[in-house]
Amino acid sequence: MAKAAPISPLAPKTYPDLPPIEGVKFATAAAGIRYKGRTDLMLALMDKGTQAAGVFTRSKCASAPVDWCRSKLKGGKARALVVNSGNANAFTGKTGLQQAKFSAEITAKATGAPLGEIFLASTGVIGEPLDASKFNGVMDKLVASVSPNGLLDAARAIMTTDTFPKVATARTEIGGVEVTLAGMAKGAGMIAPDMATMLSYVFTDAPISAVALQAMLSKSVQGSFNSITVDSDTSTSDTLMLFATGTAAKRGAPKITDPKDKRLKGFRAALDVLLLDLAHQVVRDGEGCRKFVGIEVQGAATASAAKKVALSIANSPLVKTAIAGEDANWGRVVMAVGKAGEKADRDKLAIWFGDIRVANKGLRDPAYDEDKVSDYMKGEQIELRVDIGAGKARAKVWTCDLTKEYIAINGDYRS
Amino acid sequence: MAKAAPISPLAPKTYPDLPPIEGVKFATAAAGIRYKGRTDLMLALMDKGTQAAGVFTRSKCASAPVDWCRSKLKGGKARALVVNSGNANAFTGKTGLQQAKFSAEITAKATGAPLGEIFLASTGVIGEPLDASKFNGVMDKLVASVSPNGLLDAARAIMTTDTFPKVATARTEIGGVEVTLAGMAKGAGMIAPDMATMLSYVFTDAPISAVALQAMLSKSVQGSFNSITVDSDTSTSDTLMLFATGTAAKRGAPKITDPKDKRLKGFRAALDVLLLDLAHQVVRDGEGCRKFVGIEVQGAATASAAKKVALSIANSPLVKTAIAGEDANWGRVVMAVGKAGEKADRDKLAIWFGDIRVANKGLRDPAYDEDKVSDYMKGEQIELRVDIGAGKARAKVWTCDLTKEYIAINGDYRS
Repeated sequence: MAKAAPISPLAPKTYPDLPPIEGVKFATAAAGIRYKGRTDLMLALMDKGTQAAGVFTRSKCASAPVDWCRSKLKGGKARALVVNSGNANAFTGKTGLQQAKFSAEITAKATGAPLGEIFLASTGVIGEPLDASKFNGVMDKLVASVSPNGLLDAARAIMTTDTFPKVATARTEIGGVEVTLAGMAKGAGMIAPDMATMLSYVFTDAPISAVALQAMLSKSVQGSFNSITVDSDTSTSDTLMLFATGTAAKRGAPKITDPKDKRLKGFRAALDVLLLDLAHQVVRDGEGCRKFVGIEVQGAATASAAKKVALSIANSPLVKTAIAGEDANWGRVVMAVGKAGEKADRDKLAIWFGDIRVANKGLRDPAYDEDKVSDYMKGEQIELRVDIGAGKARAKVWTCDLTKEYIAINGDYRS
Repeated sequence: MAKAAPISPLAPKTYPDLPPIEGVKFATAAAGIRYKGRTDLMLALMDKGTQAAGVFTRSKCASAPVDWCRSKLKGGKARALVVNSGNANAFTGKTGLQQAKFSAEITAKATGAPLGEIFLASTGVIGEPLDASKFNGVMDKLVASVSPNGLLDAARAIMTTDTFPKVATARTEIGGVEVTLAGMAKGAGMIAPDMATMLSYVFTDAPISAVALQAMLSKSVQGSFNSITVDSDTSTSDTLMLFATGTAAKRGAPKITDPKDKRLKGFRAALDVLLLDLAHQVVRDGEGCRKFVGIEVQGAATASAAKKVALSIANSPLVKTAIAGEDANWGRVVMAVGKAGEKADRDKLAIWFGDIRVANKGLRDPAYDEDKVSDYMKGEQIELRVDIGAGKARAKVWTCDLTKEYIAINGDYRS
């Protein structure tokens, strides 16, 4: 098993003060699912009427809890969220779905919530049956110990190979009344036995219907969690959920049901910022990473073409190893643009590292100063920008470098 | 610049005897394009009437020589092939195309071949102008020194980061008359400044028309060079060409012009074997590789779905690092099947390493012996087979493992 890694050098230096979200309480426990001496189970209890939205992995081999959540989300309501680390309950066949159901039944019994309003996630080893009976002993204690201030502890309980817990918060208004968002994420961009997956949960007191939440979440995920990559590998368990307790209505916030309601403008923006913050934290915990890399593609024919080219660059092992080596290797960037298969004008291509233009009009920029760009590449944050000369659309994605440490973490013997 | 690597541990232990192909002669020279103390320029001179076919990179940022070859190939005839290493003449703008043309003009003058029958390739650094005047001094000497036995030397002259020259040969018959094929390749699956690209040239004395050659080559490349991957990165210069001098007609071989002619059956099969051999040699020289990996996907809905899933597994950094770590980590294989996006039945999935079935019916195989599979993973050649339970189609691809040495080679400082 991989050794515990030191905290990522790209981890945030401080945590935000996390305000309570009225109508949500958290508790954590050490259920002994796999890890020793740490929490591995978290419960979020939500007020009656809490609205829910979700986005899940596109994997064709999704885990049992993902199947469960997808089916329950049709109701649009949530009362409880239960997440365990240490076991992914993925590739566990019918037993897996049975154990997921069993864990929901235990939760329903302890909380009084209906089965259809209980959401689940499991992260950790693939292919080993999850023993949900381990939840049985601790669920009553979890319910008894919930606290409105438990978000950071909850973020810790769902960590696997993460080196730091990931949380974020934002304030905005709806109809002139303040509403709050707070969320957590886990993930180091990886998936595998002993490894990770991407989970994220965001809570708000805003009175927004499930339909409107879903529309905003599906849009906001495009520019955040769907715009990051660590190693191009996709988990069988990726889950992002948004829960709205609606308690701000008591303070006069209007109830919003229409996704197009203009009063959602501030909330939308706050959600975008918060999801991007959490997504960036996942990249900053990418296994073995030393550099946080923003990749912006402009001059594309369409926004989706821009994103495809940006992800082609972000997923290229040759680009990522060059950045690890502090080498402004724009030839590899050209290669990655070319292989994306999108329209690009080779003879108009321009490439910048930071503000330094290293290539222009399809040629090495004669003015570029090798010393300056070398200095820039030594930094912890690298901004790479490419104009592909085919139009006006743009997109930005984020990734990290590819280091020997990545190989060490993932190439170690399993036992 | 990356240090010279030792010869790949997966290199073939012996070279085949390379028979001369009547109508083709080779010569090499040290033109000092970038490297010192080694050959970096090769010329193949072919008899009048030689027929040509080619397949090129799909990159949208193709190199100047690729543009040149594509336009000349319309004529279907070849007299000369000139390939240099040390400079890719890629991302060099209009100057690049001018220098390509200039090098063809030098060749035309020295050989008497028409410009439209001269084919070019350049491999090496991207983004630095190629100084074709360096060809000027040596082309006459090359023409004067051509020999029918120069194929292995030619294969050496076009190496960049390759650790061994790649050659192969095959014999077959057309209409009962023996014909011979012989070819070379270079490539370590990489592309970048100081790095590589994939080039391959195959010669035959069979009297086959350009149209028929092209049809066979386009088909044969699918199961060979288009079924290998080292790091998922695609060169701007990838080139595969097939030349037929037709000299076997003097010995009675029938001239074939129809791609569907049944007398091509043996030739087709020989070409498939030869291209696959060369493609495997490229994988066996993958940078930093220690293990040669065959990945076969069966039970897919279509052949293209099978190939997509196989390539998803072959390109997964998590699968490749697991194999480097000699870990039969089938959870990562499940992940890679899932992310491919093709139809797969999670609950019918079965996975084998060699003959050992580690997962069956969507679950860990209860019968599998961890010690046996551990022993198997220590081998130099790993065969991974996956049944995705969605149909009857299959595909096979080849790759190598992903090691720290890959990062070291590609993450070193450029200067």
